[in-house]
Amino acid sequence: MRPGAVLGVDIGGTSVTADLVTCDGVSLEARRRPTGHGDAALDTLASLLVECAGMAATHGVQLQGIGVLSPGHVEEVSGVVHFASNLGWREVPLAAALRRIPEIAEVPLTVGHDVRWAGIAEGTFGAARDARDYAVLSIGTGIAACLVADGAVLSGATGSAGEVGHATVVADGDLCACGRRGCLDAYASGGGLLRRYAARSGRSDVDSVAELVAARDHDHDARVVWDEGVDALAAGLCTLIMTIDPAVISLVGGVSRAGVALTQQLGERLSAEAGWKSVPPLVVSPLHAMSGRAGAVLLGMQSAGCEKHAATWSAQDVSAWGRSPHAEGAR
Amino acid sequence: MRPGAVLGVDIGGTSVTADLVTCDGVSLEARRRPTGHGDAALDTLASLLVECAGMAATHGVQLQGIGVLSPGHVEEVSGVVHFASNLGWREVPLAAALRRIPEIAEVPLTVGHDVRWAGIAEGTFGAARDARDYAVLSIGTGIAACLVADGAVLSGATGSAGEVGHATVVADGDLCACGRRGCLDAYASGGGLLRRYAARSGRSDVDSVAELVAARDHDHDARVVWDEGVDALAAGLCTLIMTIDPAVISLVGGVSRAGVALTQQLGERLSAEAGWKSVPPLVVSPLHAMSGRAGAVLLGMQSAGCEKHAATWSAQDVSAWGRSPHAEGAR
Repeated sequence: MRPGAVLGVDIGGTSVTADLVTCDGVSLEARRRPTGHGDAALDTLASLLVECAGMAATHGVQLQGIGVLSPGHVEEVSGVVHFASNLGWREVPLAAALRRIPEIAEVPLTVGHDVRWAGIAEGTFGAARDARDYAVLSIGTGIAACLVADGAVLSGATGSAGEVGHATVVADGDLCACGRRGCLDAYASGGGLLRRYAARSGRSDVDSVAELVAARDHDHDARVVWDEGVDALAAGLCTLIMTIDPAVISLVGGVSRAGVALTQQLGERLSAEAGWKSVPPLVVSPLHAMSGRAGAVLLGMQSAGCEKHAATWSAQDVSAWGRSPHAEGAR
Repeated sequence: MRPGAVLGVDIGGTSVTADLVTCDGVSLEARRRPTGHGDAALDTLASLLVECAGMAATHGVQLQGIGVLSPGHVEEVSGVVHFASNLGWREVPLAAALRRIPEIAEVPLTVGHDVRWAGIAEGTFGAARDARDYAVLSIGTGIAACLVADGAVLSGATGSAGEVGHATVVADGDLCACGRRGCLDAYASGGGLLRRYAARSGRSDVDSVAELVAARDHDHDARVVWDEGVDALAAGLCTLIMTIDPAVISLVGGVSRAGVALTQQLGERLSAEAGWKSVPPLVVSPLHAMSGRAGAVLLGMQSAGCEKHAATWSAQDVSAWGRSPHAEGAR
């Protein structure tokens, strides 16, 4: 019998990644595609899965489980994505649609919520490995959190717990993509930071948060937008700390790549904001931008029925997937 | 053998109540005393407990368990109150101190956190009886919440989850009793409402929220302070809904006695604030101001080892305790 492997697919607002990983945690190959929108995003996924099935055959491994992570409001039991604004999806029966692909029809496939599984990955082999109560704040195109209390992920009554990106941080503040005003997301997400910079500076040529961070020493607009974003994060996190009292807050997603430039300033603002309440450690995930991909692979391991095995993988192993010589497609 | 009864003691910032209730849920007698501060509060408790032991003997019942609820930062396992600002307590070994009282030395006694047990009472026989995910917001002298996710009360890493009274609702806003600025508590707690009214109107003769509510139709200052309080509650609850997604929010504590005057205006403001996010039912607890006292009795039942029995009591039974002809002392 061929050695086993699983596939983890992480659908982001910008790109989809697929990681083919052995059941021992070794990355065999990874792929990245632009996500597309609406039906086109479904077509991207279908062709990527077919390609990965072929990839598994090429590597001589047996595909034993597939985990697919989607943003938005995802019902994990049925595999339906009720709403994902960035993808233009409403009531998409994602698991059912993907299970109909002939090339992978025999492989157990499960659909999960991206931030929830990034959070489970953080607790399994990331910054929160030994914590029972923690928060994983994903700051990417949008902002959401995976909240874990006494070892269990908070789902909420309708499955939408953790939407902290839509906490109000500025009364009657800037319009958010969600239609509300003053949301944390509007000030501190990747999308929010770039929209606010473009509106303030009149420039449309800064299209990454890394550029914005680099520019803040000489560009006053970049400085103001960044500082206001960090202030908004401090306000949102302060309320989160008062509410759920986490032992550690792990930062994931594109904006967290700002690293110390983010954590030092944010930690100072947060301590000032929190007053008497002590602030838990604020850590950029050692999984770097891999926590979503790691979560997808973990869900694939669960689909294959061997998720316990994944608890022995280290953060170094997992974060190395992105640098694997076989994984160039996903860099 | 004499029939069994338990004692529930609820330590409030203003007064302490003690309820002597049979194991069938019938109120035998209740007492209320001004709480006092610091060591005096401990003396109040000790003399009240001695008095209640005598009361049990008079009623011919055997005292089988005692539950004592404290505000502040309470460690339930050790029975130590680490910090309770309204009582002036720091590191008070409450359970140990009370267990040394000779008259009750034989009775199992447990110390719990007031809002946590008010929340458990709400889930046991109040507004959240069938809910797995709910929030109980206590709006009394201060504001705190008991948050329940998938049937379990959130404690947090350091036991301080639910401090939503110290969510920031107004950036650089009014000074809170906690030393921070712009806390929900400063705007919408009983203490906050009365302090803001006194500061705005220059009058010091309005000393209950009921008076403030009654005055708002003809007193502009009362109207503004009340409206800003409700707006602050809407902002705080909106963020709470985004964060933990409760099926129902139950309101308890003195300010909740404003009833429809509170829930209608708050519901409207909250729906406007929440935008796309649907708002769960907002219910004034059917236990009225009894949820803390009911929680204390429930903890007493747990101390006695018969808490399952309490699940058969109705909200009517429990809220009737306050109107019991034997309970006049606690009205």
